[in-house]
This record gives sequence, structure tokens and C-alpha cells, in this order.
Amino acid sequence: MMIKAGRRGIHYLHTLNNVPKNLIEKGQSRVVEASLTLIRERAKLKGELVRALGGAKASSSLLGVPLGHNSSFLQGPAFAPPRIREAIWCGSTNATTEEGKELDDPRVLTDVGDVPVQELRDCGIDDDRLMNIISESVKLVMEEDPLRPLVLGGDHSISYPVVRAVSEKLGGPVDVLHLDAHPDIYGCFEGNKYSHASSFARIMEGGYARRLLQVGIRSITSEGREQGKRFGVEQYEMRTFSKDRHFLENLKLGEGVKGVYISIDVDCLDPAFAPGVSHIEPGGLSFRDVLNILHNLQADVVAADVVEFNPQRDTVDGMTAMVAAKLVRELTAKISK
Amino acid sequence: MMIKAGRRGIHYLHTLNNVPKNLIEKGQSRVVEASLTLIRERAKLKGELVRALGGAKASSSLLGVPLGHNSSFLQGPAFAPPRIREAIWCGSTNATTEEGKELDDPRVLTDVGDVPVQELRDCGIDDDRLMNIISESVKLVMEEDPLRPLVLGGDHSISYPVVRAVSEKLGGPVDVLHLDAHPDIYGCFEGNKYSHASSFARIMEGGYARRLLQVGIRSITSEGREQGKRFGVEQYEMRTFSKDRHFLENLKLGEGVKGVYISIDVDCLDPAFAPGVSHIEPGGLSFRDVLNILHNLQADVVAADVVEFNPQRDTVDGMTAMVAAKLVRELTAKISK
Amino acid sequence: MMIKAGRRGIHYLHTLNNVPKNLIEKGQSRVVEASLTLIRERAKLKGELVRALGGAKASSSLLGVPLGHNSSFLQGPAFAPPRIREAIWCGSTNATTEEGKELDDPRVLTDVGDVPVQELRDCGIDDDRLMNIISESVKLVMEEDPLRPLVLGGDHSISYPVVRAVSEKLGGPVDVLHLDAHPDIYGCFEGNKYSHASSFARIMEGGYARRLLQVGIRSITSEGREQGKRFGVEQYEMRTFSKDRHFLENLKLGEGVKGVYISIDVDCLDPAFAPGVSHIEPGGLSFRDVLNILHNLQADVVAADVVEFNPQRDTVDGMTAMVAAKLVRELTAKISK
Amino acid sequence: MMIKAGRRGIHYLHTLNNVPKNLIEKGQSRVVEASLTLIRERAKLKGELVRALGGAKASSSLLGVPLGHNSSFLQGPAFAPPRIREAIWCGSTNATTEEGKELDDPRVLTDVGDVPVQELRDCGIDDDRLMNIISESVKLVMEEDPLRPLVLGGDHSISYPVVRAVSEKLGGPVDVLHLDAHPDIYGCFEGNKYSHASSFARIMEGGYARRLLQVGIRSITSEGREQGKRFGVEQYEMRTFSKDRHFLENLKLGEGVKGVYISIDVDCLDPAFAPGVSHIEPGGLSFRDVLNILHNLQADVVAADVVEFNPQRDTVDGMTAMVAAKLVRELTAKISK
Amino acid sequence: MMIKAGRRGIHYLHTLNNVPKNLIEKGQSRVVEASLTLIRERAKLKGELVRALGGAKASSSLLGVPLGHNSSFLQGPAFAPPRIREAIWCGSTNATTEEGKELDDPRVLTDVGDVPVQELRDCGIDDDRLMNIISESVKLVMEEDPLRPLVLGGDHSISYPVVRAVSEKLGGPVDVLHLDAHPDIYGCFEGNKYSHASSFARIMEGGYARRLLQVGIRSITSEGREQGKRFGVEQYEMRTFSKDRHFLENLKLGEGVKGVYISIDVDCLDPAFAPGVSHIEPGGLSFRDVLNILHNLQADVVAADVVEFNPQRDTVDGMTAMVAAKLVRELTAKISK
Amino acid sequence: MMIKAGRRGIHYLHTLNNVPKNLIEKGQSRVVEASLTLIRERAKLKGELVRALGGAKASSSLLGVPLGHNSSFLQGPAFAPPRIREAIWCGSTNATTEEGKELDDPRVLTDVGDVPVQELRDCGIDDDRLMNIISESVKLVMEEDPLRPLVLGGDHSISYPVVRAVSEKLGGPVDVLHLDAHPDIYGCFEGNKYSHASSFARIMEGGYARRLLQVGIRSITSEGREQGKRFGVEQYEMRTFSKDRHFLENLKLGEGVKGVYISIDVDCLDPAFAPGVSHIEPGGLSFRDVLNILHNLQADVVAADVVEFNPQRDTVDGMTAMVAAKLVRELTAKISK
Repeated sequence: MMIKAGRRGIHYLHTLNNVPKNLIEKGQSRVVEASLTLIRERAKLKGELVRALGGAKASSSLLGVPLGHNSSFLQGPAFAPPRIREAIWCGSTNATTEEGKELDDPRVLTDVGDVPVQELRDCGIDDDRLMNIISESVKLVMEEDPLRPLVLGGDHSISYPVVRAVSEKLGGPVDVLHLDAHPDIYGCFEGNKYSHASSFARIMEGGYARRLLQVGIRSITSEGREQGKRFGVEQYEMRTFSKDRHFLENLKLGEGVKGVYISIDVDCLDPAFAPGVSHIEPGGLSFRDVLNILHNLQADVVAADVVEFNPQRDTVDGMTAMVAAKLVRELTAKISK
Repeated sequence: MMIKAGRRGIHYLHTLNNVPKNLIEKGQSRVVEASLTLIRERAKLKGELVRALGGAKASSSLLGVPLGHNSSFLQGPAFAPPRIREAIWCGSTNATTEEGKELDDPRVLTDVGDVPVQELRDCGIDDDRLMNIISESVKLVMEEDPLRPLVLGGDHSISYPVVRAVSEKLGGPVDVLHLDAHPDIYGCFEGNKYSHASSFARIMEGGYARRLLQVGIRSITSEGREQGKRFGVEQYEMRTFSKDRHFLENLKLGEGVKGVYISIDVDCLDPAFAPGVSHIEPGGLSFRDVLNILHNLQADVVAADVVEFNPQRDTVDGMTAMVAAKLVRELTAKISK
Repeated sequence: MMIKAGRRGIHYLHTLNNVPKNLIEKGQSRVVEASLTLIRERAKLKGELVRALGGAKASSSLLGVPLGHNSSFLQGPAFAPPRIREAIWCGSTNATTEEGKELDDPRVLTDVGDVPVQELRDCGIDDDRLMNIISESVKLVMEEDPLRPLVLGGDHSISYPVVRAVSEKLGGPVDVLHLDAHPDIYGCFEGNKYSHASSFARIMEGGYARRLLQVGIRSITSEGREQGKRFGVEQYEMRTFSKDRHFLENLKLGEGVKGVYISIDVDCLDPAFAPGVSHIEPGGLSFRDVLNILHNLQADVVAADVVEFNPQRDTVDGMTAMVAAKLVRELTAKISK
Repeated sequence: MMIKAGRRGIHYLHTLNNVPKNLIEKGQSRVVEASLTLIRERAKLKGELVRALGGAKASSSLLGVPLGHNSSFLQGPAFAPPRIREAIWCGSTNATTEEGKELDDPRVLTDVGDVPVQELRDCGIDDDRLMNIISESVKLVMEEDPLRPLVLGGDHSISYPVVRAVSEKLGGPVDVLHLDAHPDIYGCFEGNKYSHASSFARIMEGGYARRLLQVGIRSITSEGREQGKRFGVEQYEMRTFSKDRHFLENLKLGEGVKGVYISIDVDCLDPAFAPGVSHIEPGGLSFRDVLNILHNLQADVVAADVVEFNPQRDTVDGMTAMVAAKLVRELTAKISK
Repeated sequence: MMIKAGRRGIHYLHTLNNVPKNLIEKGQSRVVEASLTLIRERAKLKGELVRALGGAKASSSLLGVPLGHNSSFLQGPAFAPPRIREAIWCGSTNATTEEGKELDDPRVLTDVGDVPVQELRDCGIDDDRLMNIISESVKLVMEEDPLRPLVLGGDHSISYPVVRAVSEKLGGPVDVLHLDAHPDIYGCFEGNKYSHASSFARIMEGGYARRLLQVGIRSITSEGREQGKRFGVEQYEMRTFSKDRHFLENLKLGEGVKGVYISIDVDCLDPAFAPGVSHIEPGGLSFRDVLNILHNLQADVVAADVVEFNPQRDTVDGMTAMVAAKLVRELTAKISK
Repeated sequence: MMIKAGRRGIHYLHTLNNVPKNLIEKGQSRVVEASLTLIRERAKLKGELVRALGGAKASSSLLGVPLGHNSSFLQGPAFAPPRIREAIWCGSTNATTEEGKELDDPRVLTDVGDVPVQELRDCGIDDDRLMNIISESVKLVMEEDPLRPLVLGGDHSISYPVVRAVSEKLGGPVDVLHLDAHPDIYGCFEGNKYSHASSFARIMEGGYARRLLQVGIRSITSEGREQGKRFGVEQYEMRTFSKDRHFLENLKLGEGVKGVYISIDVDCLDPAFAPGVSHIEPGGLSFRDVLNILHNLQADVVAADVVEFNPQRDTVDGMTAMVAAKLVRELTAKISK
């Protein structure tokens, strides 16, 4: 048995007396700047490419955010983005979406890589700054018209800086379609305002969303219901899904606002369909239920995320990676035009 | 069943007529430059920190190279670096190495993050250029005295650009201690000169190593033995390990050269000890055999790598991740002083 | 390969000549008495606590029965009770049921621990006596008003002594809602009258149930159908579930009898939703189907069981444990008031 | 890493100078003849037995075709037949089908064993000849009235020689009900006309099927849709399954032709229900959906297959083997009368 | 994601105003008393049986202590005792130990069952009291001459109350042979004096052991080495095992004290041999190394324990359960005479 | 739960009144004859091929015997032969053995396929006849000089008919080197004279072996030791392996008899090295120990077997298949010359 948990890099070294504080701060600033420059350059190259090919009005572009530490339970979602990418291009399936979009056309799908979350944290960057870097990265993608960000989480805490960036960049609130087993709307969870359980409280408080529809909910406390009422959230619980199904499979969103944002927590699915999640909550949606909602949605989808896939809980053959990848593929088809 | 394998990003788009070639080339150059800048800044921050703390003559610094596509069989090693880091700091063990070094002291261990291999490939960077970028990254770490690179693979093809960089930077050949089930010394494997089966042929041809000792060998063809003779490699096969053990557990290397490089392919271990590898080859070393060789080695270790850990073949509880991490930990203790 | 199966403890020692028979019998009686005393004391403490808190008319209290040897195939259900408890309180979910009951209020849920089944068997207690001890334990819980037993199996053979105890204690038959892939109503299976395949034959013969509704049935022989007719069982097979669904999702039971008993064999679910069972029988209910039946049921539920969860067949992350736990949680909400 | 892929037996030895070509050809002919003789004798024995028992107008008889090399991705289906047989007779379930047929009555189900595919390949038999041997084997079963072949794959390439044999033997086309995630109707996949992605193109070109209904489709390219139109295939995609369900659960097929053939690719099921497949494609049918289609189908089923179960991707407890076995069991009930 | 961790039973209810404190205290006392009575009666029955059979001078008797909450990392060892018992009697092996003892002779091995740890905790019993109950239970076994306790953990924290009880009952210190990857001798770990990392500090402070030999050590901090010196512990680290092997395989212990206690932490073994542990620490003993030490030990073994087997980390086929069981079997042979 | 175990094919139909007994017997004879003809033709083709290539004095030829029903515990070894073949030719390793033999040279290794054990059993062939068919098949291989049989089990019961055939064909006893955790020498196990626990008793009684050396033994009863003495078996138990190692690694066998037979039960290895076995018995040989014994053995190896690999207990990546395959590969090198 053993003793004290190791501590990473310089994260806890601020207190060391013999290291000048401004040495660290200057170094951090240079690392942050270089990180954003790298994302900017990748986005720029992909934007130039899509524009050179021509004909695309909206084009989805992947941005990975391998962040897992704002989870209250397991931190495996930090490993998700490369696994989802591998599954998108896996040799076991083809490059056509269900409704016929071709993913190997860069006008449909490009990739700007990952925000270097783990390396920033290892350089002592705190969460306030990290969230800003994520927002900044999203804006760098949006800068490159017609690219639209399709974000690969990471835990659900990342939806806050992403939606904030989208709203700020577009200049007004969006409508949010949020598929999840949980409302993620708690005031503050275990003292962490960036907790993956609180991201939608932050979004609503900031006025970044007008309507917020939550679908797939089946683990909610009284606080969750009260917060829902307080913010005017439309909460569709699984208990009544058989009654709500017709409505949810014929949604029209985004009128009068800047567009629609879709946030899919993989655990909106029943664990039978998506075992690779941190929070196993039986009684969820089937994969086809989710696709029916997405395929029939009438909306101008300006950005989206797929979060909370946890590769450390997946089956050995990566079934949930394939599930997350197909959600990304179908969202790509929804965004690009 | 399905049809054509998807193709990533712009990698195959050079042939497209309507995209100006120099648009892509300029963008690629900017991305390469930004990638190296980011590594430089992280290395610089860590170097400044260690120097500010003072007292370290040599300090190991992790550099991840998530590259798996030069494997002839499986490509999972591309996912290894973040899993090894997680295991190094896993709460199930402490921060002290077997001989008493404290890993949470930055003078013993820092981290400069990963070379963004997958993102560079997605931007259409080919292998010639990628290998140079890896070499360049290694040199950026060595630039920051007293940092010494401890590279996390990736497949074994990465040892070539790493050893090349080390030798070029130090200005002469090194001695190489290479633990592996295979000699990786084939002229060219399946037409790929960068194949993970050929890295040590490249190293020997380039004159980057004076002595090359291969330990743990148990899968070798006649060509492998002939190449060994041709390059003067000291091949210690498992067939005779009980006789060679005393010699190998009392090695003294590096005299008259620029130092010693240690390359550990995780499959030098018997698969009982390290199941998470692409090439299961029974009859290998025990974990203690490897530590006995390392602990008793007399050498100035200037750099090292741990390669070929394949998380997609590991046990659900990550036993091989812990094995790779402990190899890294003990190498850290060997390097730092 | 190997020789003779080991035999546990004194179970087979009755025949030994040099051990006085009454020495064993006296010791067994003392052990049985002490076992029941321990259950009585735990039930008493929990009953006193709930009554002191006040306001509860009915309060569910867990009683584990770790018995697996009456299964015809695998005996893993003997390990289920502690795993279900762990999953009920698992940090990955909260303490609120779907309809808003708070499980961390002892007026909603308490626990009186396990009947020491394995230890009794190791002391040579035979099945006749063991079944009586189980019945007795159930009555000890019911003695402590307002506690109502929510039994954690164990294989399905335990439903017989449990329902018998409930009926005897209440002084008349109950209605039974039985969710299962199999009717468990065979006269006698492989010579074992206590077989998990025969428990409902025993219940019907004893007059402990008035109506018996079986839902989820998809593995039934001609004998199973004949026994069903003989006892007037209402058998709802999966073949016709799409037609029966409306009826089953709007049940009203228990009028004119002493209350309603719910017995959930985890294999009523399709193995996609509950892989951790001994008898994989594709084509079953979804988790939501079961909750819809439970949530809409109009009944005074006097006791219930969740049986046949087999941890030795579960996924590594314990998906079926979470499924069994959520069934227990929602049954708790149904019972307590 | 390693060197050159091993090559089996004499398969690649034709080019060897010192082996007389006709020595190999004569030996191959004797092996082919002996293989067919063995199948003939087994079929004959089973046919005699069923006729001696009397009363059967149609009786399903298993024929295994352990062929996996025409898959574009994984070759595990070559190991499926013995695993499916084990699951059919597994002690965890009984011998009665959902609608009451008794499988242990040889008039309902017999078995003529496997075509020795691997051994024929090891003797250098090429695919043209192998496909003919499969066709010949199917005809040998049909020779023994009232036996009807229920073929255990193997990958989906085997459906072509099987349907061809059935049609040739009966003297005209059949109607085919094809359940699959993919249309398998590509002209030629990766240069292999026998690819598992092309079998239904071969069937339609040969005129062996009049109507071809494809159900469960959710991975289809533009070529797949065009080939579908070209051959007049009725493609029912999962996207519209909720609308098509009523039609598909009330099919009447085979009028005016020689009968109905059912081909079930296990991946027609959602991977939640059947994880043990090579091509994980989320969003498929539930197991009950498939049974509803089969149970309500009005047709004279003259032969059938269950293909693409891949034991190397199954759960440790063999859930998909049980799924494949239950499909075989229910098809047996459909065929036999 | 989710909200607040559930809390078990009455454990945290002391603060509730409306529950009279003495109601709980009285109930707890009755539950403790009943728990000890049950253990006493089981021990008595087994003792009477062994004495009636006659001829045994020392007879090992299993006592399970399913306690996992004093682990700093994972709590799975709480599930170990029933799994070890199942493996001891598993049909895959016979009842004879390597040196010929017959385990199905009750004079060699009996079982007094488990201390009801989880149920006591659920009744609000704190750790001070729980440790006393464990000590008391051990003494109840020793009361029944010739029974000697062979304790099944549980995490390593249980060795403290067990050794204390053994020493107090025998009236003086014992020699302790302790096989482990860790010294478990820290002053106090994370503020918990009962931590599984501190048990041997408690034992040495209490004077319950004269000599303490630690074998297999390979994760030790400077504090661990200092505490070792302070208490005069003989620490044999794996680094020097090849040199120490001869000494350790020829031990003679216990002269001049009350006997020898053997404590085996399953993680003394390399994780290749025992993957089912909480703390994977590569570089450990082989299973045969441990048996060589045990078989050749000259000692009067008065009690022993096997701890830290974690079923939640075991392979699906329970390899580590078989390993733990064989350790128990061979210890049984060592104890009984 | 479920009802009555299914029964395969015609195996139990002898009792049916309306099937003429001689109809079955004639059919069975034809099936047996056709089975042997097929093996004869495959052996003949391979023999002709090797002779045409010239230069081989002894050439190993694989013969699979997929028989698992004589195991006392699990029957998975029936699935082993195709999995071992796949692993022999797996792309993760090359075709050269450790000492330099090239497996893709047919003079070193050919394959005559499997005895159709399951299909013979399904035709009602009993064990007496089945054992004779296995013996006959072995002789058919030996008929084709210079082929020597290398048999792939199956459970260990097959060694009896194989060794019998070898001895009868050669006209005298052989020396047998038997590596196993168990002696397999019981008079009759659970009433089955063909039990895998009794095969070496049958061999010794029949006089087919002169010397029998058993290595790796660690699960043996008093009967096992007595039978060993009775037959003059040289039993080397693991308890003394460190002392016996030198002798066993320098064996010279077969002088004065017809040659040497090697029988390797995969469970001779410690389960750390070979988890995929039915009988997990910790404390066994390492893989290198076995190779050291084989490589240094001086003997004319006339035939060999590798048995008791159980794919149903293997790791998901087939580690034990690779282990069994490497044993076969190295035996091939030992046999062929």
C-alpha cells in the first residue's frame, strides 16, 4: 500500500520560494499564445481549403477538447477525441452518412485538432484561463467562414465555454437542444462552478441560450427541477418519452435567434447502446430515437458537441466509440450545407 | 458490409485540381512552424523552472510522440502517451522510484507534452517531414539544459528520428541499449523505410550508434541475423538468456562516446507481464529482469524511449500502462542527477 | 485435469461414525437461533429508527438472500446482494428516484442485511430448514411496522419462501406481478422441488397468490403453458407484447386481497440491457418498458424481490449491477409512502 | 515488429518448380471428392432418419460454412458455426421455440456438419472452385427430402453460392428476405467479385431471386442505392423503420416463385443486441423487431442462412452466440412442418 | 452527471434531532452482541466437530473479514471472502495440497464464516468499535482449541486487529512474516490511523510482534524506510531478491516467542500472476517464489491472513481468486497438524 | 430459468422404436469411412508434396482433434484447433522459429486438417469407436513418409489414442515427455475410462510407453502418486523444480525405443503465461522454462501433441492461442529434419 498521490509538473509549484513567480507567468503566457497560434493556423488552412474548393455555405470542423477533470466521478472523457476520430474513419464502415452526405469531401468535414488541454494544465494554467482558451479556440474556428465547430469532448463542462463563444461570436443567444440523462444545471457542484454538473446553469445565467430543451433526462433531483423552472428550461424526462416522442421527433428550433446549438451527452442513450460512459443510468434513449430527433429537426445548426464518451469504460471492441463517431457523422451532415 | 475506406482531411487532396498547391504548402509550413513553437515554449518554461530550482545536472523531461502508422500490424501505440502519463501519476502508487528518487520534484521529472503527430498528418505532412519534426522536437528539449528527453512512443519507428537527433545534437554516436523481442533491423519492411521493423537499420546506417546491444530477442529471421552481423550488433537472444544474464545485469556502456541511449520496446517483456502490445511473442523477459539490467547499468544516459505500448490491447485495468509507466519512472531515476 | 470435487465443511459429515449426531444437531440449532437473533436485532433497530423519525406509513427495507444453489445452471446470484447495495449508493448517480423520492431518508429505505445463507449451509443446514429460515427472516422484518421487505436475491427459488411468509404474515393471498423470461412454474425440476424453475408452482399450490401475472415470457415449454392454465396464471408472452403493452402499462392490482407482491427476475430484460444473468434469452423487455409498467401500476405493494442478477456474468463496469440497483430504487419508491 | 506474413500450406506453392503441377491437381480432386462424399453421407443418414420417423413435410438441417476470407475487414466469422451449434444446445435454455416447436425432434432439426472450407483452402482450392463446392453441398442436403438447408456462416459472401444452389435445384427464382445493416450489392468490392459486399449483386445478376427485400439498412452509399434501383431491390432503410414497421411485420412472400429464402446478417441488429459482429453500425433493429418480422411472415421458407456472427468480437459470455442461435432456432421453426 | 453521493442507512443519522441518541446506542449494542454470538456459535460447532473427530493438534479455520473502506484507493477487497471460498472448492482442482494434506478433512480446514462488517457499518458502528469486534471474533475462534484463525481479507487494515488479538490471546508477541509490495508502516495515512498503509506501524507500536520480516517490497518511500529502521523491521526489497532468495527460502522463525503469524498481501506477487489487486506494482514475486518461501519455512504458524484480493479487478475467469485460494490452501497445510 | 437440456442430433435416438437400428448403423459406417477417406486423401496430397520437394527426413504435419467432452470441467478445448492454426500464421509474427526453421517451407510443416469429431458424435458414434477413428487418423498421417503427426487437441483424453497409434505403427513403445500440471493417471475418473484425467494410465497399461517423465506437476492426489509408482513414472513436481531444473534442461531420451513422444498440456505453464485453460493451477512453469527443456532435449521426436488450450477462457486478444501456437511452432522445429 502506498503514500501520497503524485502531483503533475509545475501545477503545484507556485508556492515554491526559489522560483520567481513572473518566470512562470511569462512562460505560461508564451505557451498559451503558442497554443492558440497553432489552432489558428490549422483552422486557417482548413478554411482556405474549403473556400478554394467552393460551394459550401456551412462546413463542420472538428475541434477536440480532451478535458476530463471537471467530472465528479471519472475522468476518462479526457481520452475521447482521438478515439472518436479513429472510429469516424474506421475501416468497418464507409464515408457516407445515413442521408447521403460524403464525409471525405472536405466541404462536409474538416478537423482543426485538439486544444492542448493536458499540456496547458501541466504548465499550471488554471480553470478560469483554460475555459477562456477553449472559448477562444472555438472563435478561431468560426473566424474561418464557412467552418462551424463540432466539438469533441471531454466532459460536459466544456459546453459552457463553447456555447458562450458561439453566442458571443454570433452576437446573441441561440436555441439549445440538449440530449442527456442529467440536466447539468446545478448551481455549483461540490464547490466547482465549472463542474460538468453545472454547465447549463452557467449558460443560462450568461444569457447565451434563449430556449433550452433537455431530452433523455432520467436522473434529476429536486434542485435540478427547480433550476429548470427558474431558467425556463423545457425538460423532457424519459418517464414521459412515449408521450413526448411525436413532439420531439418533429422539432423546429432557432427562429428569431442566431441559430441552434446541439449538445449530445452520450449518456442520453441507454447504457445498452452506449456502455462507455462514466454515469451508467438505465432507461435511456435508443440510438434510433436520437437519430429520429436529429434527422427530423428543422434548424440552422451553428455548432454542436458530443461529450462524456469515456473510452476507459468502453467495450474492448470500442462499441461506444463507434456510437459517438456516428453521432458526430450525423451531426456533420446536419451542420454542413 | 461496406465500401470504401474513409480518408482523413486534406491528406489525399493534393491531387484535387481546384485547390492551388501553394495554398496548401504555405498553410502546412505555418502549421509546422506553430507546432515547433509550441514545443519550444513548453520546453523553455520547464527548463527555466528546473534551472531556477537549481542543483540538477541532468533532468528527464517527457516528450510524447503519438505515432502508430509505421507499424506493420496494429496502430494502437498512437494512443499511448496520455495513458502512460496517467499511469505515472496514478493514485494507486506513490511518487518514489525503487531507488528513492522523488518524481514530484521537477528537477527529476518534467513534461513538454506531445508532438502533434495526428494533426500534422491530417494537414497532409508526409513521413519525411514528420520524422524531421520529431528530430527537431527532441533537439528543442535538449536545447534547454539540463533537460534530457525521455520519449513516450508511439511505435518503434520513432527511435530513428530520436536517436538521430540525440547524436546530431551531441556531435557524435552514442551506445544504444535496445530491449525488444525483435531486432527491428530489416532493410526495408513492406516497402516502408520508416517501418517500425527497420528503425535500427536506419540508426546504424546513419552512424548514430557505436555499439548496439539487443536484449530480449526471440523473433528473428535469417535476414535479421545477417543485418545484425553486417552492422556489428550484439544480439542477445532469449534462447541463451540464462547464460547471458550475469553479463547483462552488469553492463557498463558509453565510454568513449557521447553517452548512452536506452530504447525499451514494451514487448521485450513476456506477454504475461505486458499483454498490451501489438506483437504477442511468448518467452520474454520478466519485469524484474528488465529492472535488474537497468538498475545495475553503469552509464550516463543521455536520452531514452519507451515504445510499442498499445492501449487497445491492454487489460481493462490498464496493467500494461502501469508497466510502461514504471519503466518510464525507473528510466527517469536513471537519467536524472 | 483433476480428481475429486472438494466438499465444504461439515455438510457431508453426518455419516461419519465418530461424530455424535446430537452434537451436530445441537450446534446447528444454536447457529440457526443466533442467525435469526441477529436479523431480528437489525430489523428492530431500523424499525425503531423509522418510527422515531415518524411520518412513514410504509417503508422499504432491504433483506439480502445470497442463495445460488437452486439454479439449474450457474450459481453466481449468490454473490449479488453486496454488489447491488454498492450500486445503489454508487457515486455515479444521486439519491433521488425518477419520481422524486429521496433514498437517503431512512423513512424511504433501510437495510437489515443478509440471511447468512452460505454459513448456514456450511453448518449442514438442509434446504427444508433453510427455506424456513428465509421465511422467518422476512417475517422478522414485517414485524417492525412500517418496514416492508424488499428482498435481494439470490436465484429465483427464494421467491417461494418469501411470498409464503408475506402471505402468512398478512393472513391471506396477495396478487403477484412477476416479470421474467421464464414462467418458473414447473412441477419439479431435475428432482428439486425448490428449484428456481419451480418456485411459482410452489406459490400457487400453497394458495399464497390469487392472481399471478407473468410478463416478459419468451422461453416456455408445453409443460410451462399447461401448468399456467392449471393454476390460472395470466401469461403475457413477449411474442404479443406490442399488443399487450397498453394493458400492462396500466395495471391495477390487489383489490380484495392483502396487497401486491412484485417479483423481478433481471432476465425479464433483454440481455442487451442486462447481460449479467445466468440465462441469456434474447428478445426481452427494455429497461424503460419495465419502468413504465412499474410507474403506472396502481397497487399497495407489500413486498418485492429482485432476483437472478449474476455478478459473474456482468460487464467489467458492472452495468447489470446498476440495472438491478435501479430496479430496487424504483421499487423502493413504489413501496414507501 | 515482424517480417513476412506466414503462408499456409500449399496454397502458394503452384509456382514451385520441382513440384509437378498434376500431382497437386490430382490430389486436390481427390480431396474435393472425398469432402463432398462425407457431406453426402451425413446428409443421407439424416435424411433416412427423418423419413424413418415419418410425418415431416419440411425439416431444417444445419450446414456450416466456416468461411471468413471474403470479408473486407475481419475474418472471425470463419469460427462461427461450432459456436452457434454450442449455443443452440446450451444448458441455459430449453429445446422449445417461442411458438412451441421441439428442437430435439429430428423431424424439426438435424445437422449435416460443416463444409471443410479451411482444409480445402489449405489444399490450394481457389475461390471459384470453393464456391462451387458450397453450392454442391447445399444441393446434397436438398437431395434428401424433406431436408431443407439452414446454413450457418461464415461471412455474407456465402449467400451467393447458397441461393444459387437453391434456385438451380428448385428450377427457378425465389423471393429473398434479407435482413442486414448493409445492402451487400456492390458491383465488385476491392476487386473481389466474391466479396461479402457483393453477394446480392451476384444473386440478382444470376436471376436467382425475383423479389429482394432488404430490411435494417443503415450504411449505404450512392452506389448501393443505384444498384438497388438497377436490380429493383426493395430497400427498407432504418431511417424510415417506424413508418415501415407495420408493412414489414405483415409480409407475405413467395407467391408465384419456388419459395422464400431468408438471409439474416446478424448485424441487422443494433450492436447493443449483437455486439459480436465485424461491422458495428449503431441504429439497428431490436431482437424483438426481427422476431416480429419472422413470426408474422407468410411464406414457404425453402432455405435460410444466418451469417456474419464473429465470435472474436463477442462478449466473454457469448451473448451474440446466443442471439445467432436463437435466430437459427426460430428459423428452424419457420422452415420445418 | 450527478449530485450528491448517497449515504447508507443510519450511519450519518446521529445528528438528526428527532432520533433519541440512546435508542440508536442500545440498538447498536444488541446488534454487536448478536453478531459476536453468531460467530461464537459457529466457532463452537466447528471446534466440537474437530475435537470429536480427534487427532488434530492444530486446525485452520477460515474467518472472513469483508472490510474494504480503509483502502486509500479502491474498496473491492470487501467482496473477496465469498469469492476465495468458492475458488477453494472450485471443481477445476482437487482437495489435496501440494504436500499432500486433504482439505476435505475437517481436522485440516473448517470455516466459521464472516464478521458482518458491512451490516455493522450500516448500523453506524464506527471504526474503533469495528476493529475491536474483529479482534474479539479472532479470539472466539482461538477459544475453540485446536482451531487456529486463517483470516480472509478485506484490505490490509485488518491485520492490525487480528495480530493484536492473536498476541493478546497467546500472551506475548509473535514473529511476523509479511509478504507485500508495500511496507504498510506509515505513521498515519491521510489522517486515518486504521489505514491499510499503517497497519504494521500499529502492530509494532503495540508490541504485538517481535521480528517483522517484509518480503516483496518494491514501493516504498523514505518515510517507509525510516519507519522500518525505527521499528527494527527486516525489509527485503525486490531490488535485491536474487541475492536474498536463498536466505528467504530457508527461514526459521518463532523461536522464543508465542509462534509465527503470516500475512500475505496478494500484491506481493507480480501483477502478471495476480492482476486482481487494487495496487498494480510490477516487478514482484512469482507464485512459485511465494510457495518456496512458505513450504521451506520452519515455524509453528499460529494464525495467518490473505488480504487485498480485489475481485473487481480480477480477470473474467477469476485467475486471482484461484491464486488467493491456493495461498489459503497452502497456508492451511502449514498451520494444521 | 429453464427446463430440459437439449440433446444433439441422433445421438440419443437409438431407443426410438420406429427407426430401424441397422439404418442408423449402416449410415454411421458410411460416415466413418468417408471421414477416414477424407483424412487419407489430405495426408496423401501433403505427403506427395513433401516427397516431391525432396530432402526431408522427418516433416511435421498438423492433425486437429477438436474433442472436449472427456474433460471433467469445461469443454472449450473442442474449439482449439482452428484458433491455434490462426495464431501460427498470425500477421503479428514471422514464419521463423527461434532456432531458424522456416515454417512456410512445406518440408517443415504441413497440415492434414481435423478429425470431424463433432460431426461423428452428432451421428451417434460412441467413444470406443471415436478413439479408434482418432488412432486410425494418426496412422494415416504416419503412412505418408516422412510426415510425422503433430496433434492439436482437444482435451488430454486424446493422447491415449494418439500414443497408442504411434506405438502400434512403429512396432514398440516410445519414451514420453509429458508436461502438465496434473499427472492424468487416475484409474478411471468419474466412471469414464477415457477421461482426460486417465489417459496416461491407459497408455502405461497398454505398454505404449517405456519411460514416462512428467514435468510441471502441482496438483496431484495420493492416488496420483501411487499410480505413478505403480507404473514407474518419473514425476517431477514443481515443488522441487529449482533443484530438478538442470536435469530437465539437459534430457536425453528415446535410446533403445522407437522414439520420443512429447505431450504438452498448456496448463503446465503458470496461468500468468497461459490463462486460457480449463484448470487454473498457479505455480507452474514459465514459457521460457518449457522452451529451455524442448530446445535442449536430445531425442528423435516421432510425434507430439499440444492439448487443453481452451479458447473460451483466453484473453480477448488471444494470448494463450499465441502461446499454444508457439509451442506448436517450436515442436515443429524439433520434429522436422
